[in-house]
Amino acid sequence: MKRKLLIMAVAALMTTFSTVAQEPQSKLLTNEDVVLNRALSPKNFAVQWIGATDSYATTVDNAIVATDARTGKSRTLISKQEIDELLGDTFTHMPRYTFDKAGNLVVSTMGKIYTIDLESRSILSQHAFPTVKDKQIANVTHQPNNGPLFAYTIENNLYLFDGENHKAVTAFEDKNIVSGQSVSRNEFGITHGIFFSPDATQLAFFQKDESRVSDFPMLDITTRTGTLKNIKYPMNGMASEHVKLGVYNISTGETIYLNVTEFDDERYLTCITWSPDSKRIYIQVLDRAQENVALNSYDASTGEKIATILTEHNDLFVEPQHDLIWLQSDPSRFIYSTNNRDGYYNLYLCDDAGNVERLTKTDADVQYVGQNDKFVFYTSAEVSPVDNHLFMVELKSGKQTRLTTAEGWHNISMSKSGKYYLDNYSSLNVPRVVEMGRTDLKPGRELFRAPDPTVGYNFLPIELGSVKSADGKYDNYYRLIKPMNFDPTKKYPVILYVYGGPHSQMVKNTYQAQLRRWEMLMAQRGYVVFVMDNRGTSNRGAEYEKAIHRQCGQCEMQDQMAGLNWLLSHEWCDRDRVGVHGWSYGGFMTISLMTNYPEVFKVGVSGGPVIDWKWYEIMYGERYMDNTHNNPEGFAKTSLINNAKNLKGKLLICQGAIDGTCVWQHSLSFIQECIKHTIPVDYFPYPVAEHNVFGRDAVHLYDKITAYFEDYL
Amino acid sequence: MKRKLLIMAVAALMTTFSTVAQEPQSKLLTNEDVVLNRALSPKNFAVQWIGATDSYATTVDNAIVATDARTGKSRTLISKQEIDELLGDTFTHMPRYTFDKAGNLVVSTMGKIYTIDLESRSILSQHAFPTVKDKQIANVTHQPNNGPLFAYTIENNLYLFDGENHKAVTAFEDKNIVSGQSVSRNEFGITHGIFFSPDATQLAFFQKDESRVSDFPMLDITTRTGTLKNIKYPMNGMASEHVKLGVYNISTGETIYLNVTEFDDERYLTCITWSPDSKRIYIQVLDRAQENVALNSYDASTGEKIATILTEHNDLFVEPQHDLIWLQSDPSRFIYSTNNRDGYYNLYLCDDAGNVERLTKTDADVQYVGQNDKFVFYTSAEVSPVDNHLFMVELKSGKQTRLTTAEGWHNISMSKSGKYYLDNYSSLNVPRVVEMGRTDLKPGRELFRAPDPTVGYNFLPIELGSVKSADGKYDNYYRLIKPMNFDPTKKYPVILYVYGGPHSQMVKNTYQAQLRRWEMLMAQRGYVVFVMDNRGTSNRGAEYEKAIHRQCGQCEMQDQMAGLNWLLSHEWCDRDRVGVHGWSYGGFMTISLMTNYPEVFKVGVSGGPVIDWKWYEIMYGERYMDNTHNNPEGFAKTSLINNAKNLKGKLLICQGAIDGTCVWQHSLSFIQECIKHTIPVDYFPYPVAEHNVFGRDAVHLYDKITAYFEDYL
Repeated sequence: MKRKLLIMAVAALMTTFSTVAQEPQSKLLTNEDVVLNRALSPKNFAVQWIGATDSYATTVDNAIVATDARTGKSRTLISKQEIDELLGDTFTHMPRYTFDKAGNLVVSTMGKIYTIDLESRSILSQHAFPTVKDKQIANVTHQPNNGPLFAYTIENNLYLFDGENHKAVTAFEDKNIVSGQSVSRNEFGITHGIFFSPDATQLAFFQKDESRVSDFPMLDITTRTGTLKNIKYPMNGMASEHVKLGVYNISTGETIYLNVTEFDDERYLTCITWSPDSKRIYIQVLDRAQENVALNSYDASTGEKIATILTEHNDLFVEPQHDLIWLQSDPSRFIYSTNNRDGYYNLYLCDDAGNVERLTKTDADVQYVGQNDKFVFYTSAEVSPVDNHLFMVELKSGKQTRLTTAEGWHNISMSKSGKYYLDNYSSLNVPRVVEMGRTDLKPGRELFRAPDPTVGYNFLPIELGSVKSADGKYDNYYRLIKPMNFDPTKKYPVILYVYGGPHSQMVKNTYQAQLRRWEMLMAQRGYVVFVMDNRGTSNRGAEYEKAIHRQCGQCEMQDQMAGLNWLLSHEWCDRDRVGVHGWSYGGFMTISLMTNYPEVFKVGVSGGPVIDWKWYEIMYGERYMDNTHNNPEGFAKTSLINNAKNLKGKLLICQGAIDGTCVWQHSLSFIQECIKHTIPVDYFPYPVAEHNVFGRDAVHLYDKITAYFEDYL
Repeated sequence: MKRKLLIMAVAALMTTFSTVAQEPQSKLLTNEDVVLNRALSPKNFAVQWIGATDSYATTVDNAIVATDARTGKSRTLISKQEIDELLGDTFTHMPRYTFDKAGNLVVSTMGKIYTIDLESRSILSQHAFPTVKDKQIANVTHQPNNGPLFAYTIENNLYLFDGENHKAVTAFEDKNIVSGQSVSRNEFGITHGIFFSPDATQLAFFQKDESRVSDFPMLDITTRTGTLKNIKYPMNGMASEHVKLGVYNISTGETIYLNVTEFDDERYLTCITWSPDSKRIYIQVLDRAQENVALNSYDASTGEKIATILTEHNDLFVEPQHDLIWLQSDPSRFIYSTNNRDGYYNLYLCDDAGNVERLTKTDADVQYVGQNDKFVFYTSAEVSPVDNHLFMVELKSGKQTRLTTAEGWHNISMSKSGKYYLDNYSSLNVPRVVEMGRTDLKPGRELFRAPDPTVGYNFLPIELGSVKSADGKYDNYYRLIKPMNFDPTKKYPVILYVYGGPHSQMVKNTYQAQLRRWEMLMAQRGYVVFVMDNRGTSNRGAEYEKAIHRQCGQCEMQDQMAGLNWLLSHEWCDRDRVGVHGWSYGGFMTISLMTNYPEVFKVGVSGGPVIDWKWYEIMYGERYMDNTHNNPEGFAKTSLINNAKNLKGKLLICQGAIDGTCVWQHSLSFIQECIKHTIPVDYFPYPVAEHNVFGRDAVHLYDKITAYFEDYL
């Protein structure tokens, strides 16, 4: 119901749309602009809370200025020149800084972390990052509660550095045993493998055994003779890595491993969370099939399980992604986030006894933002799936209050007290506003309003709207650009840009609605450009997200065709000149569309595509597709190898030649299938690019894509 | 002078040219025809001498028929049915057969070699090829003088099989030590690594140590998870393999290695030749720089050098390629072939004392064909570089006599007596004639005349002629096809097909002048197609061949431009629509031409190109380019990386993705350089193709090349 309201709001917005700049809009985009021209993005404005205070810091005239949120009074904390003098260096720009809990300035630069007392203008401490002669060190992690303490990895092993000495936490000669690094290919919200206990006495770390995981070879052409760049790539249905969590006692030098017994050795260990007292570790243990989760607590000193606090099951999939958050007002309780209980991501208050109390009561996906003793703050899609607003829920009463009012997408940083927040937001025609807001709902203060970055360029209007999903149950949001000098009595070629995969949202009520500037370039060159989200994408609840299960691409295509057919129902669209372009999952969607609807699409450009889910990684792929053994019909139906013979349009495939995400086997196997059937197909590798193509490579890429549509569409 | 005469002959030939077929020439070629239609090639006619006799064998009506060369009388030796019965099998076709020295029939099939006595219709012997359970065996070599004796390799080691037992000749665990296989990447005429002594008591074998040679990784996409296909690839200027020659005594089981002391460990051992008495081994030892050769003899039982018989030096390069040939009438003398003494490949009579007597006295390249007690037979380019005729030289008098008279290219097989020869020849408009000729110059006998294979297709006239080289010193031969429905008042686009590299001759006075059928397809589609040899190619003497030294591509381009400019001087050529296509060295030439003459070439397609000689192999590349250390200016000038920024035309590069000859680093590095400069370039990999693209892959390839010229030229 709330979504319906939004549609009306968006419709209103569309009718009142007008370009915002006043100058003549003459300049057309080049692909240099598309890729490299940062001036076309809204200006940033850096602001952060100072420690636990209600003052925020900004950089003004080469000095760090603190402003009291309550009074609005500002004072200079320290100038760049003073930092230069203190650190004995001359920085070209203000160095990157942050603040510790006590409000001291922390400057990280030149291989050192300095903590500076702002009252006395003196260095409280300086800690050098670890370095080891002739060795490449990585994953350097500072434990700020124990000044000089760093953890880091060299190759497959994990080390500690206390400011003077280096200590090996692990010493495995077998390179397949990897410690201290991220595991599970960064799925389940995993980004790293080093977890200091809050009291800095223990170091928990991931350890994966990749012995059974197959290698995927790639070629590094940048060395004198060309060299092998090998990666471990766990493919769907094949043997996977085995993950353990080690706990290293920093004073004794001993390591224990948590005794995880659920499921088999190919289980996932997700959402690693230390208890505030550093005595327990909480893990959401997930089976390889990704259907069952056990939230367990473990004794960090023995590794033994204390309890299974709660479990989740879903016949499709469950996907734990959010660490537990300890409740500030009652450290025996924690906030738990799942979309497996009420259809949407909501926040739940839990305790060790397994009591689960729903905290947010919203039929929309919710993200935790902060808390104080009385409230938990969160953002959600409650107003509409394309807007992101800040709310608070009172712990005692459960009363929910909306805090942000300006339409659009709000990014929030709460002050420690929970009285104030910094709000960095934009909407379709608002490039960027930074405000200080108040949770007592009193008027806040605007800190920054970015100017229109497109002045001087002929940026065309972007329309934001929605079309019903193919099953009629949802509104799928789109952005649409009509070509330059649009004349509704003429016919224009159409380009559908598509991503379509999980964990994505292509269309938001942000500035330019998440425009990729290449779309604007194509509109300037006479194309109608259309981008729409479909079932399977994020921020729309569990049912919408899981509609793709065991048949990736199927309902996504149906939704995209529903959107496209709505678009093509307009007289000004040339139905005989429809192109499609996408990358990664969007590359998969591009070829899926071209081979399932060969009469619709005349030209396509697919980048780094999945071609057959059997060649995709276990962690992501088995969540959505199950595996080659238990879902053969799903793999057969979605395989573009099987579909290659249906290709009729002009198709260009581009891929980074050292793509470790969608490995080269995908696209090379597809063109080999085309070759087998003598079907024309085009290809272009980016020799030193990984899964995505950046910088100058991307300028070349977009020139190529543009030329391909101009030559053939 | 002789060449001048030829030009006139060719000119005469061109004026009298007319298509040979009588039927309506309606059908146009497809690329299926180009690649797969064997019926468009002249029919073969199989004939061979029977042992040492003057009778030859042909297959007639499923029987092997012998014909006496002198009398012309034929008799059936054995029928397929009789072979079937003898061997206890039913062959679908006559199995492949040959004859041993005694004239017995030798049939190799089903993993066995049968020797059949044709008088008694009985099996004299049958020897099974070796097989080893679960092992891939390779390089299987039969020693026919010791019936059941075979040598073969498994992985890096060499084995013997005597019909019952397998014996390891080498047993190196280190995979870098490779025995019994070809070395030096098949340069210097090397094709194998197993050399039985004539008396079958010893087995000489190549052994290479590749420890220092860098690996080049390639991807095999045909396995479940994609796997590494690694090759050893010795790159220019980098460490090379070390080659030794081992001699295994079959009765004692002991191995000695020849004690070769010339030059350093990266020397080449070429032209391995056993003495007729099995006591000595002759090697032409070449330094890595390929400027010095020592022809040495070694004692096969001790490995010690007996003598250096002669040496060669050349400041550019020497290239030993031809094994010694023992003189039948005097086994203390041998025939030695070199182009380093008199400007052309000639034959020399030598002995162990180092006496060298010039045998053929011809200002044209000469190939040994056979001998009897009085004469040595050879073919040469003496009549013209595009014709190959048979001659004989009398050993006593040195008198040279031409034996073949019909114009064209003659392929000769001498009878053992030297009285007769089998001559398989063709010329521009003669698809194939097989004759029995007589060295007494009396009339021979025509055995076969192939019908026109192009009947029913609209094959256009091919013109054969010559244009002066850029330095004015040579006539460079070309073939030229004018487009279908040619009208000299119109203008046509032009495609230059180029190879241009050493050891090649694209234009010969053979049937259709060595036409690649794709040229005819393009002519049918309205293109002028032109192919010409240039300096650096073979069969034109040492000076012509070595003109490219230290600067590959430079004089080749000058010559190609001389030919092209002659062509473009015709009004019917459209100077604004010139395309170029070539593969391998021709791929290098294509991009060299496009980047050195960017105003001339509008479109190019380059296949499997060399891009920078620093990435090419040592053996071939250092002969022509010296190396990256001593010829930096030559590498800089010829590098297409340096030239990439000059590219203006449309360029498509195609390459086999598992090309172990021009490794992928070449073309990927080139497109990366184009990417860096934002220069448009197109690419297409053939995922399971090596250096050349065959079969259905090639149909796709030629469709792609055709479309590229049709889209952009």
